[in-house]
Amino acid sequence: MVVETAMSGAQQARLAMRRGEWTGTTAFKVPGYVQCNLVVLAESEAYEFLLYCQRNPKACPLVEVTDCGVPEPRLSAPGADLRTDLPRYAIFRDGIRSEELGEVRALWREDSVAFLIGSSLTFDDALERAGVPKSEEVWVLNTNLPTVPAGRFEGSLVVTMRWMTPSEAIIATQLTSRFPFNHGAPIHVGDPHEIGAELASPLVGDPVENIPEGVMPVFWACGVTPQQAALLAKPELMITHAPGHGFITDLKADQFCLP
Amino acid sequence: MVVETAMSGAQQARLAMRRGEWTGTTAFKVPGYVQCNLVVLAESEAYEFLLYCQRNPKACPLVEVTDCGVPEPRLSAPGADLRTDLPRYAIFRDGIRSEELGEVRALWREDSVAFLIGSSLTFDDALERAGVPKSEEVWVLNTNLPTVPAGRFEGSLVVTMRWMTPSEAIIATQLTSRFPFNHGAPIHVGDPHEIGAELASPLVGDPVENIPEGVMPVFWACGVTPQQAALLAKPELMITHAPGHGFITDLKADQFCLP
Repeated sequence: MVVETAMSGAQQARLAMRRGEWTGTTAFKVPGYVQCNLVVLAESEAYEFLLYCQRNPKACPLVEVTDCGVPEPRLSAPGADLRTDLPRYAIFRDGIRSEELGEVRALWREDSVAFLIGSSLTFDDALERAGVPKSEEVWVLNTNLPTVPAGRFEGSLVVTMRWMTPSEAIIATQLTSRFPFNHGAPIHVGDPHEIGAELASPLVGDPVENIPEGVMPVFWACGVTPQQAALLAKPELMITHAPGHGFITDLKADQFCLP
Repeated sequence: MVVETAMSGAQQARLAMRRGEWTGTTAFKVPGYVQCNLVVLAESEAYEFLLYCQRNPKACPLVEVTDCGVPEPRLSAPGADLRTDLPRYAIFRDGIRSEELGEVRALWREDSVAFLIGSSLTFDDALERAGVPKSEEVWVLNTNLPTVPAGRFEGSLVVTMRWMTPSEAIIATQLTSRFPFNHGAPIHVGDPHEIGAELASPLVGDPVENIPEGVMPVFWACGVTPQQAALLAKPELMITHAPGHGFITDLKADQFCLP
């Protein structure tokens, strides 16, 4: 007899990742659920990093911080295991990017603390439903805007950029304002130089020579910001999601936003 | 020659408190500026308390956490001194309420960390401007709703209660949703028993026998929640604001809310 258990789309996705059947990106996948970036640090670094997130809520909107040594995000995805339930992980040692892994059970320690940081991948789906077409490409760029330091954690704000028409930019501003736990409203619209963003040399995405006709760049604070800050702080070991390979929580995006 | 310096209403208020000229409450005073509750703990307790606030954002919306030993809230009120710039302080020792003081310079230590937690006093003024009359009285009540624990910090949710007509409750829900750093939207409206609130025995306010005709009770998460949690944790020393005697930041309430 086969017992059918009703699993949500989020649970199914995580199980596939746990089994190694899902190793690809999560962008535009499992729509409707809050996606998160992952940062795992040692407990000794957790207070300063938590303070850094508190001081920079647009870049580092915290969805959950796990208890020390506990790999289960009990509040946002009970039963999940952050050591196995992401499709791909990026490992950093002493501030230097080293290997990528499919699971990180061997690296998890008794003093590991996991930070789940809301991702803008969450609102791409909501934008599409609001009539703002899916961005063909999302750029990630450095800026010259400083973040507010906390202890050893500091650095510039990293942003994502999407092309939008002016009317799309207005809708996107209204809509993303409702998602404060997923970076919220844009931090800038228009001239990239005003925030020191160099379209010719993005961190992620193809270099841009000219802004296309009829659209303007719209910038959101990006979850790469805390990763970059953590890198400058050179922790002995830092585990993160691989870019675009987020953690799918059980939280419904439409419930985790403001009316 | 007298050099006139343009001081904001918030700066003037804090200076009067520092000089001991203002010792009364801050409710409905200095409208337009974000008011905060204060909790000061030792650094050794700060991580767990910060985590508690992160896990209970409606009750404990953090506006600022100071660097260890630094009594200046550099981000929300540069130049202010949290040891002197509140009108009145309440001191707790080993979880027991002891003295009230006008300033706490003698109690501030090198390992003191101050938490500024957004207060609903901030939105009372906005409610009035939106046509919701000033509440004659604001009750503070315990509930049977648990908060999410973090280490030693745990306890039930404490709420404020205001009487409103149904249409006022709707306006108040819309308006306070825009103030996520000041407790945000109500957590309940209507029957107090559903959340275990006993109107006959409030923590603050006169006991209520019957709900007046034509109004319903509207409940918001309250900044007394983290104070109560900190009391259960029995820290050796905890400094807080005296009830109703908040800290006035430089932050404009209308800028510190969502569109």
